[in-house]
Amino acid sequence: MTTRVALGVSYRGTTYKGWQSQPGGGTVQDALERGLAKFAAHPIRTICAGRTDAGVHGLNQVVHFDAQVEREPFSWIRGSNRYLPPDIAIQWCAFPGADFHARNHARGRRYAYLLLESAVRPAIESGGAGWIFRPLDGDAMRAAVEVLLGEHDFSSFRSAECQAASPIKILRAIEIHKRGAYWRFEFDASAFLHHMVRNIMGCLLAVGTGTRSVAWLAEVLAARDRKLAAPTFAPDGLYFVGPYYDAELNLPQKTAAMDWLP
Amino acid sequence: MTTRVALGVSYRGTTYKGWQSQPGGGTVQDALERGLAKFAAHPIRTICAGRTDAGVHGLNQVVHFDAQVEREPFSWIRGSNRYLPPDIAIQWCAFPGADFHARNHARGRRYAYLLLESAVRPAIESGGAGWIFRPLDGDAMRAAVEVLLGEHDFSSFRSAECQAASPIKILRAIEIHKRGAYWRFEFDASAFLHHMVRNIMGCLLAVGTGTRSVAWLAEVLAARDRKLAAPTFAPDGLYFVGPYYDAELNLPQKTAAMDWLP
Repeated sequence: MTTRVALGVSYRGTTYKGWQSQPGGGTVQDALERGLAKFAAHPIRTICAGRTDAGVHGLNQVVHFDAQVEREPFSWIRGSNRYLPPDIAIQWCAFPGADFHARNHARGRRYAYLLLESAVRPAIESGGAGWIFRPLDGDAMRAAVEVLLGEHDFSSFRSAECQAASPIKILRAIEIHKRGAYWRFEFDASAFLHHMVRNIMGCLLAVGTGTRSVAWLAEVLAARDRKLAAPTFAPDGLYFVGPYYDAELNLPQKTAAMDWLP
Repeated sequence: MTTRVALGVSYRGTTYKGWQSQPGGGTVQDALERGLAKFAAHPIRTICAGRTDAGVHGLNQVVHFDAQVEREPFSWIRGSNRYLPPDIAIQWCAFPGADFHARNHARGRRYAYLLLESAVRPAIESGGAGWIFRPLDGDAMRAAVEVLLGEHDFSSFRSAECQAASPIKILRAIEIHKRGAYWRFEFDASAFLHHMVRNIMGCLLAVGTGTRSVAWLAEVLAARDRKLAAPTFAPDGLYFVGPYYDAELNLPQKTAAMDWLP
């Protein structure tokens, strides 16, 4: 008898080689699975809702796996967290049923990009925020992103290493806010291609600084050609906010760390 | 001819052995002075407004020194930041006159303590927030701190290593706010004894969790005996917000990092 376990995980990606396990280790998945295996006393292989790149953070990454031991949810959390490094912590645990699949059942995913607009680079928040020293025009960026909303072929924003079956995704919302010196860009989509948010960010900042026009983003999208878009922007400010599922699964979409960020 | 230079510095203290220079290096002051010396091409020794302990952060630490080279303010900032590690950055530069003294001229200092109240420990913000897993009673803590306001002998909250000439300080304000899962405690005083904020925090949390009564804090203060107070709380959530000076000096009291924190 095994139990399918779902976990919500927060992590700071700064010192990790991304999410996905590598033979040499050093990834978030490696650290998580090592901690879970120590607590469960058997090897554990997790499947996540969305892989993140090196330097990218997770606020509510969701994983599932099959446990050969029976433990209460809070025992999974506290017991495993004891074996995890300080920058990774399980936030919640649930038993959503034997057929739950963290990736396949996700109805969509959210990302946030946090950006310091300042003449001076970050220090306190280094690794946790992107940085631009030129002032940004919020109205221009908000006008430019309109064209990205809905179902599109996002090939122009897709890295050469992307393994997605199709470049067609549904971008449901992009919100752009500013608090003090920090911009927050929020993306909600059915799924994201590899480097999609960072490539869109590069283009948005070209518009925001006036290097490119508002209309240019429509040309980039229509071209379905990565070569037309701006360079991939830094991973530092990118947060995988998390996936969302059918409400009946009753999985938490909120973690404490979401209150930490501007 | 030398120029007295004042700088505002932000830093994340997590990986440093505190502010004050040590023979073996590894402190914020060591890193800052090395970067400044590279830019100025002559050795530089700084005096700061308030030394911080290992693991404690600075939002607007102020230092002064005498430069043998003439540079524009923004050259000092950008030129020196190139030689500083990612978690330290000069935020502003001013020339407040030859007799300016970062420590002696400070009219007061502000500290903030950020605390996660959650069943689960921090991850994203590890090193940047203290953590308590039991719920806190904000009203009890706010009632308890009243007795600390004003001029008092703070010996009960002073570490044995404290080098201050007198344990008598003026505590001008303590504010306690909560945003989401995070508490923010703000302290404003003429000056602070060594470990004073962390010792007060330990006591406040004893009151906030109901371990101690509201009236107990008055007993601790009156005793002028460190043995009666709670243990020194973790440095992780402690931020030296910065000193403040006479308005005529026109020195910035705000840095971008202040908008980063909850």
